[in-house]
Amino acid sequence: MSFDLDTWTTERRRRIEEALERALPSEDAPPPTVHRAMRYSVLAGGKRLRPLLVIAGAEAVGGTAALVMPTACALELIHTYSLIHDDLPAMDDDDYRRGRLTNHKVFGEAMAILAGDALLTLAFRLIADNGALVSDPRVLRDVLTTIADAAGTPGMVGGQVVDIESEGKTISAEMLDYIHRHKTAALIRAALVVGAILAGGGEGAVAAIRSAGETLGLAFQIVDDILDVEGSLAELGKTAGSDERKKKVTYPAYHGLDASRAKARALIEDAKRELALLGPPAEAIRALADFIHVRRS
Amino acid sequence: MSFDLDTWTTERRRRIEEALERALPSEDAPPPTVHRAMRYSVLAGGKRLRPLLVIAGAEAVGGTAALVMPTACALELIHTYSLIHDDLPAMDDDDYRRGRLTNHKVFGEAMAILAGDALLTLAFRLIADNGALVSDPRVLRDVLTTIADAAGTPGMVGGQVVDIESEGKTISAEMLDYIHRHKTAALIRAALVVGAILAGGGEGAVAAIRSAGETLGLAFQIVDDILDVEGSLAELGKTAGSDERKKKVTYPAYHGLDASRAKARALIEDAKRELALLGPPAEAIRALADFIHVRRS
Repeated sequence: MSFDLDTWTTERRRRIEEALERALPSEDAPPPTVHRAMRYSVLAGGKRLRPLLVIAGAEAVGGTAALVMPTACALELIHTYSLIHDDLPAMDDDDYRRGRLTNHKVFGEAMAILAGDALLTLAFRLIADNGALVSDPRVLRDVLTTIADAAGTPGMVGGQVVDIESEGKTISAEMLDYIHRHKTAALIRAALVVGAILAGGGEGAVAAIRSAGETLGLAFQIVDDILDVEGSLAELGKTAGSDERKKKVTYPAYHGLDASRAKARALIEDAKRELALLGPPAEAIRALADFIHVRRS
Repeated sequence: MSFDLDTWTTERRRRIEEALERALPSEDAPPPTVHRAMRYSVLAGGKRLRPLLVIAGAEAVGGTAALVMPTACALELIHTYSLIHDDLPAMDDDDYRRGRLTNHKVFGEAMAILAGDALLTLAFRLIADNGALVSDPRVLRDVLTTIADAAGTPGMVGGQVVDIESEGKTISAEMLDYIHRHKTAALIRAALVVGAILAGGGEGAVAAIRSAGETLGLAFQIVDDILDVEGSLAELGKTAGSDERKKKVTYPAYHGLDASRAKARALIEDAKRELALLGPPAEAIRALADFIHVRRS
């Protein structure tokens, strides 16, 4: 029987949504405004790709979704905080995200900054909670270190800094690669890796997953750039061509659309090859790799 | 021989400054701009009260500064990130802090937001590092949970939300108390508590330190409000009377200066009484309590 990604993701997304709903303070918990703002952006739908990758990373080494769910939610909160802050007027100044008004357009800039801060903080609270589910104390430290580095200036924030500083400038192919690897790929790689670490994956398995995660993360960002060029407002829920409008250099702008598509395809195949040694348990990661490639939003 | 707070703080501040210097990425580590922005605000001096409290909390139960230094630095990074974000135009819109231009006035709003995000993230990295210095795995979880709750919407961010929402409005004494307890007291209490937890303090000792920390934190904020009313620009390094200018309700505005001074004095005495059972090892906390009371900035 071949692996059915739809069935796999539907069941796991349902559990992720339930866990996110429980992890976030309720709308009437004081102070209500910031909790409404946090819930507005986190519970706005989205693919839940990072939580799915945490679960897929765990399953690839014999773990379960239940064992890693707090950390899966934490990765989604970190992703969401980064979107809220990136959308701010001082940053990318976007009015729409996933087809809805951005956080600061609804709650104001001050509340959007604070909601982002609170989501990042809550993420680390959830990771701590996940520590109670594993017996080896080194696991919690490894997970914290991996996620903090992927989210901070050695990772996501570092990529965003260079991205903002390069707007309207001519940048090298190396610089574009730096932005992609840090702004997006770092957290995607971390999602897979911490799933495997929490589930007690051995060194070789974790190394293969880390390498595949890096490759997949880069493919994800190239596909994102292609979609921005090709996409329509209806499909993306944000203004297509927004990268061009903001004079951001994208992979297709640098290498052309055909070469970008070929590069994404090659990276996806690389990632799947890197996962081959893990056998059938890594089927979900390989299927998610294909999904990252063919997605339309 | 009586306890000499000057000698105690001078030696520990020196070690805190060294540890902060080491914990922060260097100015030329890529991407340099955000690292410069982080270092600008963290290494701008300041009392280092929170790191000192972490160390004092550890020493009160027989621990050492070395055992808790990464977490001591983490608390200072969290405090600094909150100042950087609070000073933003969308928040309190302050141009000066500690006598220098605020972060966004030097590096721009986008970089100030990202530097704050990066400091919060790095704080959790340092807490993870501290986990390597303790043997009981529950300790790292306890420390993470305590700090994340004190920094998030159950603590500091929650207080800041209510503070911002109350500007220019009439608020009750209960609401003012809520703001003080959450915006400032929560992190001050957490500093003492995590020091004691990391140093292996027993339940009774940690409970006494927690209670004293809450009382001290409240006293700290009342003294802060008094200083804002009384202070001069030269002493505070920020515009005195700024709370009044921004129509923020302060303890003196609500209760009068004399009652505020009496309240601060009573809280300091309460905190010192709560620490009595810990005996001489808690001398540094008691001396810091007096310092919080008599400080002029």
